[in-house]
Amino acid sequence: MEVVRVLHMNGGAGDFSYANNSFLQLKVISMTRPIAEEAISNLYCSTLATTFTIADLGCSSGPNTLTVVSQLIKTVENIRRNLYSNPIEYQVFLNDLPGNDFNAIFKALPSFHESFKKEMGGDLGPCLFTGVPGSFYGRLFPSRSVHFIHSSYSLHWLSKVPEGLEENKRNIYMAETSPASVLKAYYDQFQKDFSLFLRCRAEELVDGGCMVLTLLGRRSEDPTSKECCYIWELLAMALNDMVSQGIIEEEKLDSFNLPKYMPSPTEMSIEIGKEGSFVVNRIQVSKVDWNVYNNNDESNGLRAGGYNVAKYMRAVAEPILVSHFGEAIMDELFIRYGEIIVDRMAREKPEFVNVTISLTKMK
Amino acid sequence: MEVVRVLHMNGGAGDFSYANNSFLQLKVISMTRPIAEEAISNLYCSTLATTFTIADLGCSSGPNTLTVVSQLIKTVENIRRNLYSNPIEYQVFLNDLPGNDFNAIFKALPSFHESFKKEMGGDLGPCLFTGVPGSFYGRLFPSRSVHFIHSSYSLHWLSKVPEGLEENKRNIYMAETSPASVLKAYYDQFQKDFSLFLRCRAEELVDGGCMVLTLLGRRSEDPTSKECCYIWELLAMALNDMVSQGIIEEEKLDSFNLPKYMPSPTEMSIEIGKEGSFVVNRIQVSKVDWNVYNNNDESNGLRAGGYNVAKYMRAVAEPILVSHFGEAIMDELFIRYGEIIVDRMAREKPEFVNVTISLTKMK
Repeated sequence: MEVVRVLHMNGGAGDFSYANNSFLQLKVISMTRPIAEEAISNLYCSTLATTFTIADLGCSSGPNTLTVVSQLIKTVENIRRNLYSNPIEYQVFLNDLPGNDFNAIFKALPSFHESFKKEMGGDLGPCLFTGVPGSFYGRLFPSRSVHFIHSSYSLHWLSKVPEGLEENKRNIYMAETSPASVLKAYYDQFQKDFSLFLRCRAEELVDGGCMVLTLLGRRSEDPTSKECCYIWELLAMALNDMVSQGIIEEEKLDSFNLPKYMPSPTEMSIEIGKEGSFVVNRIQVSKVDWNVYNNNDESNGLRAGGYNVAKYMRAVAEPILVSHFGEAIMDELFIRYGEIIVDRMAREKPEFVNVTISLTKMK
Repeated sequence: MEVVRVLHMNGGAGDFSYANNSFLQLKVISMTRPIAEEAISNLYCSTLATTFTIADLGCSSGPNTLTVVSQLIKTVENIRRNLYSNPIEYQVFLNDLPGNDFNAIFKALPSFHESFKKEMGGDLGPCLFTGVPGSFYGRLFPSRSVHFIHSSYSLHWLSKVPEGLEENKRNIYMAETSPASVLKAYYDQFQKDFSLFLRCRAEELVDGGCMVLTLLGRRSEDPTSKECCYIWELLAMALNDMVSQGIIEEEKLDSFNLPKYMPSPTEMSIEIGKEGSFVVNRIQVSKVDWNVYNNNDESNGLRAGGYNVAKYMRAVAEPILVSHFGEAIMDELFIRYGEIIVDRMAREKPEFVNVTISLTKMK
């Protein structure tokens, strides 16, 4: 599986599209916004750049894409106006893998520009949007050209499926039953990828430039901890059921593993320390209910909530599952997955753990 | 008609897609390449920039898109290697209107990067591609950020259909039967648009930065000259036939006009002089056969040639025609148009006239 060619959220505007199933991600963006605002405010005040460059890595395609960036611009504009500074130019780099639905973002831009100008009033400078297709595990922007980098719910994707997972049969990610060699293979890949990410961004950021990164992670130092693995274990359960019933070949499931890693704050800090270009301003761990609409007080709502989890997981995971298992089994798989999730959510209240980290590139 | 939302070449990879019907445009790019190469070579030698920024305006989507830019990079690389300079970074801005099929370009990038790296060998620096959706009759890039701007077969599109064309009934562009007010309305719009284009680019180019622009134009000072209007007059003939037969409402045709202008070198020079930021290095007028495959020595080939003209015109003009006349009549319209073109090409050898202009922004 070549992640750079295969991985993307579901495009378009259909029922299973990411654009229509990204409320969870929006909620996380809102929860972590104060950290991004603090970082970008301090940064703008310390540089007073006349062209201010903002990048969003893993921007995806949907309502969240332009929301994130417009909020960052608003934050800077408020300060600029309070300081009575002249209008500045905003260069906005929207990055995602080449399979992302950039057309949908670009088609939304003319209306966005109109309403954003209206909202911001008179002296808003040019807001220049560009799409940057490519893996963030490689160079994306010119040297010392970016002031602020934002990334939310993307960096838990690895550049590739780690090598040496042959013994991880019946699992699709790390699990309690995974042998130690599998845990090591995943951790090694995370270390390689995250340190490469940091090196690339260190080249691209101006001195004093900032990054605020939020990703799915865990508090525990155990990489098979339920707080990060549970959602994928339930998907593996649905796949295993389909293997038992002969719908999926056993070998197909045995050879599938997710290119993901959900690190602990400590694991991230270790790589940041080794790379050496960044100061950590802040690390925050937060939690968000799987049941993002919080409508679990009535049983119907809970059922709907469970299926909703399966739907937003489908928007995220379908392209990568299709590339391995084919399209034919997707409806069936996500119905089963939905049922398993509904059942679990009736008995427990699972949450995702987010790690947010705010970094400054040293001068 | 809102040009910025409506105008784009036919997307995808189908029979009428621009990607499969852009050999004429490739031929023009090849014919004018020496001018672009001369300009970018002189520019690189005079700056020796370590991040070299190239923009292609109206890049469209198809094999030509990456061909243009890769040839420009190759030209610079050859010089850099001859000078034994260190590898440099290339920042590439691919611009077109938001309706352009950027997804198709972006999906082609991973393979392009692989084969380009292979072809160029060892010490090629990062080539950073970005898509810039927006009208070039407005700001696209940060101030003083671009070294070289290329544009081929795009700048003959205006930002909008000129106002005051009510009397241009039965025509879809300027024609011999157009009243003087129509010619004036078109010329006024060209002046406004081209001077705005120049002002925006003057802000975006670095001092000493260059532009090489090729567009459909004419040698004659008569804007209704056959050398620029004929291809559209034949399309108007097909539309008028369909009005006579009740397939299209008369009012529909009367209210349709193309947002195009094909200027003479003099008209371009006047605007460049008025704007005042640029020195003209070179103006070249060239011609290219409608029959781009030059297979007119046998009657079958000629017939195929004529239909091919209708096909590449469809790839270019269909979205704008659909937005006004609806999709239902397109097949019929282009069959009739093809027949008219075949008939004319049996009797004459029509050509397009290209104007290429090489400019340097004064320091």
